[in-house]
Parts: sequence; C-alpha cells; structure tokens
Amino acid sequence: MAKIITFGEIMLRLAPPDGQRFLQSPELEATFGGGEANVAVSLANFGEDVAFLTALPEDDIGQAAVNSLRYFGVDTTKILRQGERVGIYYAEKGQSQRPSKVIYDRKYSSISMVKQEDFHWDEIFEGTEWFHFTGITPALTPEMHAVCLDACMAARERGITISCDLNYRKKLWTTEEAFETMTKLASYVDVCIANEEDAEKVLGISAKDTDVDSGKLSYEGYKAVASEISERYGCKQVAVTLRTSLSANDNRWAAMLYSDGGYYFSKTYDIHIWDRVGGGDSFGGGLIYAIRRGMDSQSAIEFAAAASCLKHSIQGDFNRVSVEEVNSLMKDGGSGRVQR
Amino acid sequence: MAKIITFGEIMLRLAPPDGQRFLQSPELEATFGGGEANVAVSLANFGEDVAFLTALPEDDIGQAAVNSLRYFGVDTTKILRQGERVGIYYAEKGQSQRPSKVIYDRKYSSISMVKQEDFHWDEIFEGTEWFHFTGITPALTPEMHAVCLDACMAARERGITISCDLNYRKKLWTTEEAFETMTKLASYVDVCIANEEDAEKVLGISAKDTDVDSGKLSYEGYKAVASEISERYGCKQVAVTLRTSLSANDNRWAAMLYSDGGYYFSKTYDIHIWDRVGGGDSFGGGLIYAIRRGMDSQSAIEFAAAASCLKHSIQGDFNRVSVEEVNSLMKDGGSGRVQR
Amino acid sequence: MAKIITFGEIMLRLAPPDGQRFLQSPELEATFGGGEANVAVSLANFGEDVAFLTALPEDDIGQAAVNSLRYFGVDTTKILRQGERVGIYYAEKGQSQRPSKVIYDRKYSSISMVKQEDFHWDEIFEGTEWFHFTGITPALTPEMHAVCLDACMAARERGITISCDLNYRKKLWTTEEAFETMTKLASYVDVCIANEEDAEKVLGISAKDTDVDSGKLSYEGYKAVASEISERYGCKQVAVTLRTSLSANDNRWAAMLYSDGGYYFSKTYDIHIWDRVGGGDSFGGGLIYAIRRGMDSQSAIEFAAAASCLKHSIQGDFNRVSVEEVNSLMKDGGSGRVQR
Amino acid sequence: MAKIITFGEIMLRLAPPDGQRFLQSPELEATFGGGEANVAVSLANFGEDVAFLTALPEDDIGQAAVNSLRYFGVDTTKILRQGERVGIYYAEKGQSQRPSKVIYDRKYSSISMVKQEDFHWDEIFEGTEWFHFTGITPALTPEMHAVCLDACMAARERGITISCDLNYRKKLWTTEEAFETMTKLASYVDVCIANEEDAEKVLGISAKDTDVDSGKLSYEGYKAVASEISERYGCKQVAVTLRTSLSANDNRWAAMLYSDGGYYFSKTYDIHIWDRVGGGDSFGGGLIYAIRRGMDSQSAIEFAAAASCLKHSIQGDFNRVSVEEVNSLMKDGGSGRVQR
Amino acid sequence: MAKIITFGEIMLRLAPPDGQRFLQSPELEATFGGGEANVAVSLANFGEDVAFLTALPEDDIGQAAVNSLRYFGVDTTKILRQGERVGIYYAEKGQSQRPSKVIYDRKYSSISMVKQEDFHWDEIFEGTEWFHFTGITPALTPEMHAVCLDACMAARERGITISCDLNYRKKLWTTEEAFETMTKLASYVDVCIANEEDAEKVLGISAKDTDVDSGKLSYEGYKAVASEISERYGCKQVAVTLRTSLSANDNRWAAMLYSDGGYYFSKTYDIHIWDRVGGGDSFGGGLIYAIRRGMDSQSAIEFAAAASCLKHSIQGDFNRVSVEEVNSLMKDGGSGRVQR
Amino acid sequence: MAKIITFGEIMLRLAPPDGQRFLQSPELEATFGGGEANVAVSLANFGEDVAFLTALPEDDIGQAAVNSLRYFGVDTTKILRQGERVGIYYAEKGQSQRPSKVIYDRKYSSISMVKQEDFHWDEIFEGTEWFHFTGITPALTPEMHAVCLDACMAARERGITISCDLNYRKKLWTTEEAFETMTKLASYVDVCIANEEDAEKVLGISAKDTDVDSGKLSYEGYKAVASEISERYGCKQVAVTLRTSLSANDNRWAAMLYSDGGYYFSKTYDIHIWDRVGGGDSFGGGLIYAIRRGMDSQSAIEFAAAASCLKHSIQGDFNRVSVEEVNSLMKDGGSGRVQR
Repeated sequence: MAKIITFGEIMLRLAPPDGQRFLQSPELEATFGGGEANVAVSLANFGEDVAFLTALPEDDIGQAAVNSLRYFGVDTTKILRQGERVGIYYAEKGQSQRPSKVIYDRKYSSISMVKQEDFHWDEIFEGTEWFHFTGITPALTPEMHAVCLDACMAARERGITISCDLNYRKKLWTTEEAFETMTKLASYVDVCIANEEDAEKVLGISAKDTDVDSGKLSYEGYKAVASEISERYGCKQVAVTLRTSLSANDNRWAAMLYSDGGYYFSKTYDIHIWDRVGGGDSFGGGLIYAIRRGMDSQSAIEFAAAASCLKHSIQGDFNRVSVEEVNSLMKDGGSGRVQR
Repeated sequence: MAKIITFGEIMLRLAPPDGQRFLQSPELEATFGGGEANVAVSLANFGEDVAFLTALPEDDIGQAAVNSLRYFGVDTTKILRQGERVGIYYAEKGQSQRPSKVIYDRKYSSISMVKQEDFHWDEIFEGTEWFHFTGITPALTPEMHAVCLDACMAARERGITISCDLNYRKKLWTTEEAFETMTKLASYVDVCIANEEDAEKVLGISAKDTDVDSGKLSYEGYKAVASEISERYGCKQVAVTLRTSLSANDNRWAAMLYSDGGYYFSKTYDIHIWDRVGGGDSFGGGLIYAIRRGMDSQSAIEFAAAASCLKHSIQGDFNRVSVEEVNSLMKDGGSGRVQR
Repeated sequence: MAKIITFGEIMLRLAPPDGQRFLQSPELEATFGGGEANVAVSLANFGEDVAFLTALPEDDIGQAAVNSLRYFGVDTTKILRQGERVGIYYAEKGQSQRPSKVIYDRKYSSISMVKQEDFHWDEIFEGTEWFHFTGITPALTPEMHAVCLDACMAARERGITISCDLNYRKKLWTTEEAFETMTKLASYVDVCIANEEDAEKVLGISAKDTDVDSGKLSYEGYKAVASEISERYGCKQVAVTLRTSLSANDNRWAAMLYSDGGYYFSKTYDIHIWDRVGGGDSFGGGLIYAIRRGMDSQSAIEFAAAASCLKHSIQGDFNRVSVEEVNSLMKDGGSGRVQR
Repeated sequence: MAKIITFGEIMLRLAPPDGQRFLQSPELEATFGGGEANVAVSLANFGEDVAFLTALPEDDIGQAAVNSLRYFGVDTTKILRQGERVGIYYAEKGQSQRPSKVIYDRKYSSISMVKQEDFHWDEIFEGTEWFHFTGITPALTPEMHAVCLDACMAARERGITISCDLNYRKKLWTTEEAFETMTKLASYVDVCIANEEDAEKVLGISAKDTDVDSGKLSYEGYKAVASEISERYGCKQVAVTLRTSLSANDNRWAAMLYSDGGYYFSKTYDIHIWDRVGGGDSFGGGLIYAIRRGMDSQSAIEFAAAASCLKHSIQGDFNRVSVEEVNSLMKDGGSGRVQR
Repeated sequence: MAKIITFGEIMLRLAPPDGQRFLQSPELEATFGGGEANVAVSLANFGEDVAFLTALPEDDIGQAAVNSLRYFGVDTTKILRQGERVGIYYAEKGQSQRPSKVIYDRKYSSISMVKQEDFHWDEIFEGTEWFHFTGITPALTPEMHAVCLDACMAARERGITISCDLNYRKKLWTTEEAFETMTKLASYVDVCIANEEDAEKVLGISAKDTDVDSGKLSYEGYKAVASEISERYGCKQVAVTLRTSLSANDNRWAAMLYSDGGYYFSKTYDIHIWDRVGGGDSFGGGLIYAIRRGMDSQSAIEFAAAASCLKHSIQGDFNRVSVEEVNSLMKDGGSGRVQR
Repeated sequence: MAKIITFGEIMLRLAPPDGQRFLQSPELEATFGGGEANVAVSLANFGEDVAFLTALPEDDIGQAAVNSLRYFGVDTTKILRQGERVGIYYAEKGQSQRPSKVIYDRKYSSISMVKQEDFHWDEIFEGTEWFHFTGITPALTPEMHAVCLDACMAARERGITISCDLNYRKKLWTTEEAFETMTKLASYVDVCIANEEDAEKVLGISAKDTDVDSGKLSYEGYKAVASEISERYGCKQVAVTLRTSLSANDNRWAAMLYSDGGYYFSKTYDIHIWDRVGGGDSFGGGLIYAIRRGMDSQSAIEFAAAASCLKHSIQGDFNRVSVEEVNSLMKDGGSGRVQR
C-alpha cells in the first residue's frame, strides 16, 4: 500500500538526438515521462513508497510505460489497463537562441478516455497519506475535471495531504476553463506549487513587476502571489519556482516557499541546461519529500531547489538523483569536481 | 501535373533496432510509410511522374512526412495540410519462430478526419492517367468510403486507369464492412491486386485447397479466384501475390497475373527477409510500372515479382531500387555476387 | 512475499554490436543477466510472483542491476546490498562457423564474497512455494557450496519445491568438485534440468551413443540418463534439453521430460538464432511455470520448449515473451506471419 | 521554372560524432552541404521557389546528394549528371580552445570537371529572377572562372539580379588569382556579401583597425569597406557579417547592410554554437529572402542576422528553420523558453 | 625489419549500417581496408612480422589509416607520407537476392600519384623474406606497372619469395591491359593466387565447364588452370579459391592448391555471410602463413580455407582471427557451440 | 628500444553516452585509459619513442588494451601478459552542478597481482632515458610499493631521469600509507608533478590560503609548496597544476613550474570542458616532452598547460593532439576559428 499517490498521464516521449531537429535523422530517443509520473519517480528515487495512478492500454507500449516506472520502484499496481493508445509528445531540445519545442499528440490516450466510474477511490486511497496531481490532470478532458474533483474530495475525507502543481498548458484548455476548474480544486489543496506563469493564467493572480519573457522577476511580486493563493484557497504552503531563461542553454533557477506566514527563498543556481523538461516536476518531488521528512521551511525549499537544479543536468523527464546527491549539492555548492 | 496519383495514408513508422522487442532500449528508428505512399515511392524510383494524395497536419511531423516523399521525387503538392496528427505504427521485426508485430496508432490522424468536400477531384485529376488506392484507404473511416467512391467515379469519368490492392486489415473493419464497401469500389477497378487472404476476406472469393497459415498454396485455386474477380467486377487484369511464410526470416515469394484470359506465373524466389513490411506494395508499384511501359503479361508479372523480391532485402517501407536493379535480378538470377 | 525464489548471480553483460568482435568499435551493449536471474525474469513475464536472491554492491552499477529486474516486476527486496563489485561477462555473438565467445570476469563479485551467515533462510523463505538454483550458484565459491546446502535443507524442511538446472561451467570448477557438491545437493532436488553435457560432467551419468560436438543426439540415451538421475537422487521430474548446433546461426532444439515413469518429447524446432545466451534458462522458466500451472507432462514440455525456442530470437539474456506468445507458437507453429 | 538559382558545389560532409576527433571511432555522420546549396535550402525553407545548379555523377552517391536537396523542395532538375565523383569534406567540430577543422577532398569532383559548353544559359535561366553564386564557385578550376563569367553575363542580359558571397578559400586559390577573377565578376554583382576576411583577400579592400584573429572588429572600418566595394564595382547593396570568435563554442555575431548610402547594423547575438559550418550561407539565404520580400534595409539585415544566428544552433550545413522561427527570434529575443 | 612486405593501397571504407542502402540514413561506418593491407593484417594477427608499403597523405585521414594498421601490430614505417588524398570505397552489403555493391572513389589517391623514383627498393627490402602484391597494385596507374616491375625484379634479385593474388578489377583496367602487364609480372611470382574469374580475365586461361555466374564450378577445370599457370609462368605453387554464390547471404567456399605436381582440395564450407569483402585476401594471408610455417600442402590449403571461411563472419575488411581460432575451426568443424 | 617508459595500469573505461547517467540506456562507450598510459599516448602523439609497462591478461580484452596503445605507436613489447582481468573504471560525465563520477573496479587486475620478481629491470631499462610513474602505481597493492622502489633504484643507477605525478587516490590507500611510500619514492624523483590536493595528502605539504573546494587558489601558497617539495626530496623541477572548478562544464586551468629557483606561471585558460578525465596526465605528457626538447622553463610550462588545456576538449582519456596543435594554441590563443 503506497503512502503517496501521484495521478496523471505518462506519455511516450520521442526526442531526436541532441542538437538535431525533429526527424532530421531517422533516430528517436524513446523514453517515458509526464508531470505527475516524474514526481513519482523523484519520490521513489528518494526512497519514498509511491504509486502512480493513470490508465494505459494493454499493448506492448502501455506495458513498456509500466515497466519504465517499475524500474525505479514505483508501485504500478493501481494503474488501469484500458483504452487504446499511449499519449505521445515529441520533444526537441533547444540550443542557444533556438528554443526547445514540444509537440503534443496526447488526445484520445487511455487516460483521456476514462470515465468517472473507472476509479474506486476507497481502494485506491487505502493506506495513502499524500495525494499529488497537477493542473494538467484535469485539463485533459471535461470528464477528468470530475474525476479530479472526486479524487480531491475522497482524499480530503480521509485526511490525506493534497499537493498540486498548477502547471498551466495552453494547448489543453483556455485560461477561462482552467480558472473555472482549478479554483474549485484549489480549495482542497494543502501544498500548492506554481511556476512563473501559472498563478496568473490559472488562478488569475499575477506577480506585479514581473515579465517572464524578458527574464525580469520580482521577488516582492511573488511574495504577494503566494500569500494571496494561500489566503484565497486555504493552502497551507505555497511554493513558487523562479526561472530566468537567458537562453535555451542557460537558466537561472531558484524557488520560494510561503509557509506559516513566512517567505523562504532558496539559493539561486546558474544552470547550464542538459534537459529542461521535467525541471518543475523534480521541484515538486523534492518539496514533497522535504515536507514529509519534516524539514524546516528553509531546508525544504533548499532541498527542492537543489533537487530540481540537478534535474536540468539529466537526460529525460525523470530526475535520476538520490537524496545523497541533492544533499551533496546543498553542501558543496556545485563546483563539479570529479567524484572518484 | 503528375500522371499517376496514389491515395491513402502515410504514417510515422517507429521500429526498435534489429532484433530488439518494442522499447527494449530507448531507441526507435523513425521513418515513414504506408501502403499507397510505398507504391508512389516505388514508381518515383522507377522514373515515373507520380503524386501522393493524403492529408497531413501542418506541424513538423507532418512536414517531415512530406519531405520523406519529396526526397524520392514524389509530387507532394496535392497533399491537404490539415488535421491534428500523423498516424503512427510501431513495427517490431520478427526472427525465426517469433513473428513480426505491428501495433497501429492511426486513429484520429489527419486523413481519418477528412470530409468528402475537402477533395476537389477536378483539380486533383488534372493530367492524371492512373489512379491507385488500396483496401486500407476506404477502411480508415466511413467518410473515407464515400471519398473513395467519389474518387473512383471521377477517375472513371476521365478515363483514368484505376488500380486497387485489396489489402484487408482486420483491425480497421470487419469482413462484412469490407465486403459492402469494396464490392462497390471493385467495379471501378481496372487492375486488381490481391494477396493471399484478401480475396476471401474482402470479396468472399476463396482459393480452394489453400491454407495460407500452413504454407500450402494451390496454384489452381488462385487461377479460379483471379478469373472470378475479373468476371464479377470487370477488372481487366487481376494480380495475385503468392507468399509462403516458412519463418519470420524465410519466405517463398511468387505472383500470378490473370490478363485477357491467360494466367502468367512469375519465377518463385526463396527470400531471406530483411524487412517484410511493404513487400506487397512494392509488387503493386512494379506491376503498375510494367503495365504502363507496355510490357507483355509474362514480363510484367516477372518485373513486379522481382521488384518486390528485392524490397524484402531493404530496410523500411520504401522500395529503394531502380529499374536497372530489378532488370538485373530478372537477368542474373539473384546469386548475390558483389557488384564492383 | 514472493512465491518463487531463484538464487544465483546477476552479472553485467557487455557485448559488442552484432557482428563485431570484442572492442572492434568503442561501443558495448550493457545489459544484465545470469542463469537464475533469467529464470526469474521469465517467470515474472509469465505473471508469476517471483523474487531473485543474490548479493549486489550499493553503488550505481549494483543499483542498475536491481532496477533491471524491477523493470520486469521481479521482487528485489531480498537482495543483499553488500560487497564491492558486480560480476561481468563479455559476450561476443558467433556467426556461421565462428562460435559465440564468453569471457567471464566474475571473481570477487558481491555474491562470491558472501558468508553463510549472511542468509537468514527463515525470513527469506517466508511464503515461498518454489526454490530454484543452478549448478552455477554453488560453483561460485566453496562458501557457496555451504550456502546452497543450507538453502536446500531449509527449503526441504518447509516443503518448498526445489528445482535445479545442473548447468556445468568448466571455468568455475572441475568435474570432481562439481560431482562432490552437486551429488549432495541433487538429493534435495524435486525437478532437475540438464542440458547436453551436464549430466555427464556433473553427475557422471552419460547418454550413450551421443556426441554433442558432432551434433549426434540419441533419444534413447537421454531416456536412460533421465531415469537414472531420477532413481539415484529421487528427483520427481527430470527435464533434458536437446540441442544440435549446426552453426552459430542455426540450431535444432527440443526437450524431453521424464515424469512418473513416462518420457515426453517436445516438438523439435529449427531455429535461426538471434541470441543464444539464456536459451537454457528460458527453458527452466517455462518448465517451472508449466508445472506450477498444473499442465500435463506433454503440455509442460511443449510449453517449456516453445518458450525457450522464442528466447533464441531475442536480444539479451532475458526472455521477453508472454504466455500468450508461447501459446501462439505452440498453436500456430512458428510460420512467422506478421501480427497486425 | 524556379525563380532563384544558386550555383556551386554540393559535397558529402563526413563528420565524426560530437566531441570526437576524425575517425576516433568508426562512425561518421554523412550529410551534404556546400555554400551555394546551403543558400538554396535556406530559401526553400523560407518558401521560395529555388533551384540548385551543379554537376553530380550518376552513381548512388550523386543521387543521394540530389535527394538531400529534393527533401527540402529544392528544384534539382537543372543539375548536370556527369563526371565521376562527389566532392567530400571532412568536418571536425571544435570545442573550447580547440578549433573546428575542415579537410577538403573535393578535387576532380563532377563540378570541377565541367566544361564551359556543358551549360546552356538560355535554358537554365528561363523564368529566373535571381542568380546567386559565391567566391568558391569560380575558385574550383580555371574553367569555372569562365563558366561563372558566362553565367554573370547571361544573367545581366536577362535583367536577373545577381548576388555573390565573396567567400575566400585559401586552399582553392591564391589571393592573386582570386583578385583577378573576382574583380571581373564583381562588376556584375548587385548584392555583395562579405565575411570578415573576404573583402581584403579577394578584393584587396581592408577594414582598418580590425584584426579578426584577435576578435577586434571596427564598425567604422566595415562601413568604409562596404561603401568602397559598392563604389568600385557598382554593387547596389553590400552586406558584411561581423563575427567575433571567442572560442569554438562561443561567438558574437552581427551584420551590417550598406544600401542606398545608408549603413544598417543588426542586433548582436551571443551564440553558444552547435554547428558553425554554414553560418555565413544562412545569412546569404536570409538576406536574399528579405530583399526579395521587399523588407526595408533595417528589417532585412535583422532578418538575415537572426536567420544565421539560428543556423549556429543546428546540426549540419543546412539551415532548418522557417520564416516563423526567424521572426519569432527577432520578436522574442532568444530567451529560449520552451515552445509547447 | 619486417620479414614480410605487402604492397598496395589502403582505402577508407564507407559503409551504411547493416541492411541499409547507401546514405539511407546519415550514418556511415568508416574503417580502412584494401587487398594487400588486408593480407598484412591477417599475417600480423597470426603473429608474423609484417610491414605494409603504400603512400598516404600527411593529413588526419592518412594518419588514421596508418593507425588502423599499427593497431594490429603491422609495421607502418615504410609508408610514404605524400600526396593529397586517401582513396575511398563505398561498400553496401547485399541481402538475399540483392547483391553487395561497391563504388570506388580511389582515383588521384596518394598511391595513385607516386613516381617510380619514390621507392628505394634496397632500403625497403632490407631483411625481407617475402613480398606480396595483387593484381590491383599495378592496375592503379601506368606508373604503378613500372613500380611493380621494379619491385619484382628487386625482390627476385634478393631471393625474396614473391606472391601475387591476380585479383582482376574491371573498373581499373581492361583485360588487354591486365594481360599485358600481369603476364610480365607473373614470371616473377612464386606463389600465385587466383579467384574464380582472375585466371581467365588476367592471364587468358579459362576453367572449362565452369560458369561462375551460374554457380557451376568444375574441379577438373581448375586443376588444368592451375597447372597451366604454373607451367607458363614458373610459379611453384598456384592456389585457387572456389566460391559458389548462392545468394548475398549464402556462399559455398573451398580452395585448391597445386604444388609439386599435386592437387590439394580443402574442405568445403557452407557460409552464412556477415561481410564478404576481404574474403579472398584472408585466404592469401592464411596461405602465406601456412607456407612460411612449413605446413604440408594439404594442411596449408586447409588452413587458408578455414582462415578465409572465418573472415566471412567478421565485420570489415580485416580478418580479426588468431591462429588458434583457425585451428579450432579445422579441428572442431564449425558447429558454432559457445566458447565459455 | 623506447627512450621513455611509463609504468602503471591501463583500464577499460566504460562510459555512458554524453549526458546520461550510468546505465541509463544499455549503451556504454568502451575505451582504455589510465594515468601513465595516458602520458605514454601523449608522448607518442608528440613523436616521442615511448613504451608503456604494465601487466595485462592474454585474453581478448587484454589484447584490445594492447592494440589501443599500438594504435598511437606506443611500444607495447614490454607489457607482461599474465593475470586474469583488465581493471575497469566506470566514468559518468558531469554537467553543470552535477559532478563527474568515477566508480573503480580495478582490484585483482593483472597489474595488481604482479610479483616483484616478474620485472627484470635490466632488460626493461635497456636504452631508456626517462622513466615516468604516478602515485597510483604504488598505491595499487603493497607488492607494487616494492616494485616501484625497485624501478626507481634501477632507474637511478642507470642515470635515467625519473618523473612522478603524485596523483593521490583516496580509494586506493590512506594518506598515511601514501605518505609512507611516496616519501620514500620521492627522493628518486627528478621531475615532480602535483595537482591541487596531492602535495598535501601525499607529502603533507599544504598550500596556505587555498581551498580547492571553494575554488580559491593562492599562487603564493603554491610557490611555497613547490620549493619545499624540491628542497625536501631533491626534485630538480616541480610542476603544479592549478585548477579552479566552477562547474562540471567550466574550469579555469593554469600551471606553475618551479625550476632552478625560479617560478614560472603559464597562461590561464577558461575551459568549456568536454572530457575532464586525463587532463592532469596530458599535462605530464606535455611537460616531459617540453623538458626533453630542451625548452626553457617558461616555454615548457606554457607547452604543458596548452597541451592539457586541449585535452579537456577531447573525448576519452587520451590526448589526441599534435605538437603543431599545441603550438597553434600557444600562438593563436584559442579563439576557435575554423581551420580549413
């Protein structure tokens, strides 16, 4: 009985070899990933007992998705094996001034065809202490709005802690649709995570004096956003990731945690990016781990920021790092000396 | 203005490296293919002026499909750029007793979402002399039944020769659906191509004393099938491919042409298979070329059989061979001596 | 609590790309495998609840070995994480007259450095119904002789079925050493598996009129060997694999089961080999599965033979096939027609 | 009838995998490229109707070169199929202080063996509005001096706009030879493009206070160079690319256009280079497109600079970007945020 | 001072990955090979002290060719470092009925531009006991006719044994040119090697009743050819390789040695080919080794045939096998059982 | 008779593809390297006559190690072929804040199992002028302490110059063990090389005011260290490498030579790292070359620093650069302009 459950979609990620554009050569790197699956893998790598909940077809591609999670020790026994296809996303890495590019082909996937009645929350939540989903999960289909609401209500009833990464995806729904659904769900959320643009586009709360496209971030603005989210929706903790994109290769990365009225900022990392996709999810994984282990707020935000800093150096969606490696970065500062 | 038009779907083909099962490693070979596109590429490689008609989305994956056809000189200007996704098929090569395996993820692709009114046959058929489609094309959706009927009627009106490879796909429709649609279309077809099981499953005409699974083929039975197709539907020529599958690596391959009351059998090839997918399509390409060049019936069936024999030795859906190479096989007999 | 436990070594397998000799290019395929781990993966793929018992270091290479088993759903919670290195074997595939070549670098691996007291059989065997090991397990070190004897005695006490694949490895011990140890262990074995040369070299029981190097196998001789093993050591069932090596590419493969006084021969397969390593282990996996599911003797030996026939078509040590695929081969006979 | 023709050599480019020196491993990336072909592909990707003129042998390597151009929609029907070999260049990417290295093996290629009489400019130029060549084209052989002069005269007669990238290659000819030939050709050129060292080495016009090796560029000096070229040879527009090479990974990149007496400087880009070869050619492609679309001088130089900035992020000679991507860089400034 | 010298060209061999046609994907396998270099590597692998004589440019490609020989311990100190290019050959592997294909791009290579006076045979032959060349060496250029004659005369003077593999290449010269030059050189040859078509095309001596294209070989005919070569040109030993090409994958292979009036036929091997190129050269290497070690005629021809049988199983031109492996094939008969 | 001998271990280096963690995919890059072998290859590439002394097993992996050295022209005839395994190290490249990681599996390798009496220094040192080893060589085993002492005494007797790179490896021995052995050996050393932490951990001499982890290096401190080493142990020259690790991608690199009472600092390089392993060894190779060629102290340290700067740009342990390339960097300053 896994203590943590994350809920969402896992997709086949098809990526050309580094530096190539889509189908520039007939080779694709085929791995799996998706916001909530990425959080599950992060937590499993940190030693947590975690299950991933989704729907996957019974064919070999669906099985490979399951196996990719079992590889890390994620519990896959709750996964519904039904539907017809595994969602796909094509991911092309950016370089210098050329941005990374993602093409989604996720419509009609198994998780997008589920019905409310496919989920038996009593069974699913047996023994569960923490439930995590993102703004992508309800955005998949109108049916999934209802499913997510069911999940939140069931979790709340059982006293399960609920975390949510707002994660706005404009290809999936409009800001109006997002607002309508997410404001309903937000009131169940204990720990809310938002990246730069989410709060504004999903909840309509904007950081003043910040223009993410120009790389200008206002720390004061983010404080106001976090406390307003907390106030409006009753979230106990609100975490904000602070990314400044200098180029496709170079980002500045930090995070803030609002907790019990206090604002805690992590160290800022200047990152040479290897693979940016999944960076935010690894932050979520780090934060959940830190909170569950009872770290104080400053330590928790440092842990989450360091964990996600490392993710940017790793190929694929999944954050393949251990607690020791995160601690080592926090302690040694990332000078990159060889570990023999 | 291309003289030949082939009409159908082109899909992204995702294949693990040789000898591996699906996603055994995170590498996939990504090429394009599909029954009617394969015929177009065969014809372009033989020097014919050929266009491929389909629908593809405007994104980078759709563009890559277009480019993969232009590479061979296929005219892509008739392709509709609309819809949301490129159909996919996953292809795992068999080995010895382990059969090749194909998983289709083609639903909701651009060509599956077209409407009858998207096609303006007057423009499309300007300058066209030959129109080719397969049993897969109408099988995609009920709308495509109507589209294919439109195409056949428009072609017939303009005196365009029509060829069709029956190509039954049980994942796309039932034999009843196939029968209902294909018997309507068959009456427009001048040149009909059938593989082992098509005639029976699509048109309900079976070769007596033949059991394709056991590798037993009855030449007499096939003669009867061909003449019955010709009689019932008025096809001028009926070609049948004769495959005996000994293992995933070894097949016996030959073909028969029924034309003007005569039965013409090609030489039989014992093939060590490299890539079997597209073998039938390369036969269609060879046959259309041979007929258009005015070869006599015996030469035509030999050319088509030799062309498709060579396809089995080539990686990917497309038959990357020239007229010279086909002629060389017909003349030298395939002893495989190095060409320096 | 896994119902089946297999016990032995899992090694890093380093193989040059197909057709290349060792280090002909600077690329190695790095996977994991080993006789008893291979059996565990086979059983997991057939849906059994199976654990693998071994020792592995705590470093990243050891962890990757663990992950490679979790990928298939094998229970890895019983694995001791201690010692300093993962054993390695270098595997070069043969071709035509050039034989496959294996170089072992397995000395001093974690499992080779274990002590008798590292294993707590009471805990290990909780809930276990079947215990499997091979002749390689005790051959690793003299300490492992004792460990295996402990395991067999503990299993016997608890009424756990014991299976053993004799699997003689001349690089690990002499026939004298093998004889001394294995004859002790054999008396605990319920289901004994022997390949061509094992019975003679390990137990000193030879098949008359058989010369495995020349490819001559005497069915009568094997009957006598099996019944003698059964008689001498009290094994309830004795299975013998019958391999005729025609070349590195082509083998003939069948098997015999001796059970309750009856001799059951499987169908004989002519195999075009893709990867021969692990062929015998996949037979063991198939046989254990068949017996546990209560198949009759003829069905059991057919299932095991078909399962291992398929393994020869698959890259790597592990038999990546499902029960459905084995059944399909038994039913359809391996003609290799494409499965769409 | 293509409206633009570019004329020169297309070579097989053989490159070791990233970070490796020549033949460090037995793998080479084999693509095609060459100054004028690169311009043609850029223009085709921008939607222009463009043909490439060269000579290529009739063998499979020559055909692959043709196909690589057709892939992008470049018209290849004007290419002479004659001669014996495709020219080759070996390209090793630099890293940090280690410079990129190019080894040419282009002598005796098909285009280097052409005769003046092989070109029928009346046919070639039918419907043509723009003709582009580079200083490499005439440098190939003395016969090619004459061929280029023929082309320029024929183009001038027909009122075709002529553009030329001076592109000095010291391995092909001396500065004296270059001077003698290029000064003759320059008087036909409407749009002249020069990189850092070309003007000096080819036309003997040097930018004062500039030392390209030291990375010191004088904007004033370049203004003088451009106006002098315009004055001496009557070029309507003179474009100069301004590269500061900080290391093999990092370059600063900008450009200037002299037009109608005005000097227009583009934005300066700090580029993390992925593949530098073809950077100048992509500038030429961008500039021709911009001028043909009637952009004003400032917009034109910005477009050309942005197009070539992006090229540095792309593997291979060809600039695989669309007009939309160039515009997006000009508008959004290259912060590299993921495009979902 | 190497005791054996082989003399000829070493080329860069560019080959698409297995099963692909030329440039089907942008990947080429880049290795080195050439008839006489292949013999040198064979001999080095057998433990002989052997040097390779050729000319190579001083650039990185030439150096890589040198290194590829040093890798095997071949003495490269006699190689002339001059000229401008390394010859290239493109090699596409055949499959089933599709033959292997070789495209040469070797004109103007360093060895093709040498002058007679570049070779100082006194120095070159110091300490030499055996000199080997093939019919390709003089065929490169008319100048090389003279160089080879110089070499043969110098070798004869010093009592060096001379071996020659006739190796006719129709792309390099006509049968008339070959006849004129090779008949002159043949009178210096002590050990003559001919494959199926060489004797006829080079020396005008044909095997009656043999049609290599049809796979029909007459052993009696070959006996007559060998004795006639010996008689006419005074060769002490004449070896003939006997290849029957069944398909690109399957060949039958044997050889005959005529020596002291006796005819010695080797065992015949049925080979599943991995890479056929270099098969004849490996025969030459085996034969020279066998004769130098004083094997009797039957053993010598068996050794040479077994060595070259193994070559067909190995990727690349070079025969990467040891004396032990050849002996093992001769003794164990190629059943391909795994060597652990 | 090689004039230089380097002595130590050569290991198989197993590395995941760039950007991947250990066994993230089943592909490993397999090359060879090791501190002293790397120095030998550097020297061979600079044209020196150098042999590498070690022990390697007679199997194919041992042979591949030998071949990898012969490739560069390193004399391998002194290598002992004995023992059972080639040592291995797994190398994972770092990225940004994630450090590179090395896992050693070198215990029980052939060189670790040698006996004092296996080495016959009279034969080994015939014709030798320079002997190089590192602190890793004696650290392998206690027996190797004695072997190294034998070597040093034998070298000293013959007037051979001795160089040693202190190279402390904490996984091989404690600082106490290192101190005891290395202080004995140091008194034989003429040219001593130390990196940042060696002097302190091996000889107990620390650079004041320097904290390598924080990236703070004190030039004054290093001067004191060098002169103290020289004074205590009588080393004629002491070289110190000065690395500031900013991240896994970016290092600052310089070096100092203490010679005849003078301190010579090289230029400082800001390096974008491709492969950091072997960086120190390439410095040693450069320094030995420079001293042997009689460069003055400033030139010598510049040459060594430039050589090792370039190494950081090259894949694998070996420094694949020529004297010309090092000189070119010293002269042109590393602006990375393409060399055509």
